[in-house]
Amino acid sequence: MSIDQDVLRELRGRIDEVDTTLVRLLARRRELVTQVADLKREHGLPVYVPEREKSLIAERRHEAARHGVSPELIEDLLRRIMRESYMAEELSGFKRTLSKAAKVVIVGGGGGMGQAFGRLLKLSGYRIFNLEKNDWHQAASLLEDADLVLVSVPIDLTLSVLEKLEGLIPATCILADLTSIKAKPVEKMLAIHPGPVVGLHPMFGPATKSPAKQLIVVCKGRDHEQYQWLLDQFKLWGASLQVAKPEEHDQMMGFIQALRHFTTFVFGIHLCQEQLDLQKALHFSSPIYRLELGMVGRLFAQNPHLYAEIIFSSESGKAMARRLLGHFSRQLDILERGDKKAFEAEFKTVQAWFGDLSKQFLQESSYMIERVYEKSDRR
Amino acid sequence: MSIDQDVLRELRGRIDEVDTTLVRLLARRRELVTQVADLKREHGLPVYVPEREKSLIAERRHEAARHGVSPELIEDLLRRIMRESYMAEELSGFKRTLSKAAKVVIVGGGGGMGQAFGRLLKLSGYRIFNLEKNDWHQAASLLEDADLVLVSVPIDLTLSVLEKLEGLIPATCILADLTSIKAKPVEKMLAIHPGPVVGLHPMFGPATKSPAKQLIVVCKGRDHEQYQWLLDQFKLWGASLQVAKPEEHDQMMGFIQALRHFTTFVFGIHLCQEQLDLQKALHFSSPIYRLELGMVGRLFAQNPHLYAEIIFSSESGKAMARRLLGHFSRQLDILERGDKKAFEAEFKTVQAWFGDLSKQFLQESSYMIERVYEKSDRR
Repeated sequence: MSIDQDVLRELRGRIDEVDTTLVRLLARRRELVTQVADLKREHGLPVYVPEREKSLIAERRHEAARHGVSPELIEDLLRRIMRESYMAEELSGFKRTLSKAAKVVIVGGGGGMGQAFGRLLKLSGYRIFNLEKNDWHQAASLLEDADLVLVSVPIDLTLSVLEKLEGLIPATCILADLTSIKAKPVEKMLAIHPGPVVGLHPMFGPATKSPAKQLIVVCKGRDHEQYQWLLDQFKLWGASLQVAKPEEHDQMMGFIQALRHFTTFVFGIHLCQEQLDLQKALHFSSPIYRLELGMVGRLFAQNPHLYAEIIFSSESGKAMARRLLGHFSRQLDILERGDKKAFEAEFKTVQAWFGDLSKQFLQESSYMIERVYEKSDRR
Repeated sequence: MSIDQDVLRELRGRIDEVDTTLVRLLARRRELVTQVADLKREHGLPVYVPEREKSLIAERRHEAARHGVSPELIEDLLRRIMRESYMAEELSGFKRTLSKAAKVVIVGGGGGMGQAFGRLLKLSGYRIFNLEKNDWHQAASLLEDADLVLVSVPIDLTLSVLEKLEGLIPATCILADLTSIKAKPVEKMLAIHPGPVVGLHPMFGPATKSPAKQLIVVCKGRDHEQYQWLLDQFKLWGASLQVAKPEEHDQMMGFIQALRHFTTFVFGIHLCQEQLDLQKALHFSSPIYRLELGMVGRLFAQNPHLYAEIIFSSESGKAMARRLLGHFSRQLDILERGDKKAFEAEFKTVQAWFGDLSKQFLQESSYMIERVYEKSDRR
């Protein structure tokens, strides 16, 4: 047994050597990626090149299979490594898509999203100025030579802040906002400013580490050729743009944002009222339930006011919540009278409606659940 | 520009070389891990050793920091690599924790979970026999020398199948089940069998790739020293055991399984009734919403009957669903009358109740969301 203990120690030592080589390899890769980033920046090439990523992964998958290594494993590792690269590339800055170093005034630039966009625009070579709520006495002089005014204030203040900007923005200046609803802000921007207008909804939070692969919804307002450089700049950051009509955007957000937040909120209230023993629940939870509990818990780690604004500002969300309540009530009746046949019939209807997408969802979420296992030390 | 194109090609070539070295390194690591696995199997050491994993990660994190590599990156990569190792280790089999090659009869061994446990027990050196619904004419001869009878049939059949087993199981044989409710099956097992009894609820599906780090809830029935080898065997697979009283288990599952499944089911009905354009919704979805939509969609990729059984069999789940409906209705009133103050007050109550756990949930789920970005090619 003690000889075997020596052998085990020896083998573990060799595994450690392999892992140390891995660390060195990552350092080397990082150097090379930095050089690529410098070159890309010089020529204004985008950080994220889907074709390159795809072919790189395909080649390594083939190699892995030849070496008896799981292709899935190498793909997952490379994707994780590349994600890190995007963050690193960002640090070395981006090429500016506009020839001049435009003056950008961010209204509410001290807030989370304002800071995030300020930082990225600065890294891209623009001149950033913040207009905060105590700065309005100097707003006129700050705005008189602005090239872009970006409004990043809480939803409930957006319209009144836009009204205060009326007459202060030069005619050729771009007016844009980052609000998570779009119909009313875009309408208001068009009303108070005769020049270029664009509504933006970045679908990520201020804590997001890199804009690469992130989604920004774009609602065209007026004179889109004037703000094309801004959209190009977002693309250079690696972001993905989705153009939509403001109303279409708002309706979709009613579904995927307001209603979902609201039901999650109600579920949190329920857990609290039932006095669920959270620690015990975690001990009983497999990753999927841990994740579901996590999706509820994460809502309450955030700002109540922000969520109130998102939920209360969506008219379509409210109407849908009422209809959802009706479904809940009807299905509960089925449950209480023990009608499994009716339940299964409803289930199959929805199943048919989801079609092949449900399998895709199963795969995608299973992949994520696997990642939870890796992360959990506890077991 | 063309010289720069050459430089870019050259740099990418070098990155490819680094990645190829990575593939070779993984092949090498795999060889070493296989040797460790062989040694462990010989001596009946568990696949998953938390202390070794922890120290290995801590050392590589330090090295990474010294080499200018993100410690988070190396940790994530190593966890992914080790997860793969557990799966590989499994293939080489497990040491048997019982000195004799016990005869295991799996009732419903052809089903998903039955197959999964049959495979693992076989890999551990036991003799596996299946008893399927058409085999009952030979049940007596199959069971007369059984050491373990493992019942793995749908919830609604568990009690009647147990009744059919009465009188067929040798007195010293262990009787166990894998049902996802525990009070009634454990009670029934104790009633029909005078020997060792244990209720098990593996908190993972049949598609799970490895039992390492997976959770199995254990409800002690009778003569626990007689089935200790079985629990030891689960531990050797790397599983984590959680002992619970059957009623405690069922109540917890009402929360984290039945109620959650039911609300997800209702949300699916809602999406279907509203005729949400799923493809469009995906285009508008950031990873967090994609994940939430995925959690709904994945339910409908599965068996309606199975879900009906889980949801309908939980009495506490039904009662909670009724109370949840009440919360939903009250909060919707608040929403409809535009009372943001009341909403925020409720929010803060739940926030306080979650305490620091909500931050932990935020971190955990953010980690997973990052992984979705890596996976998505689309953007």
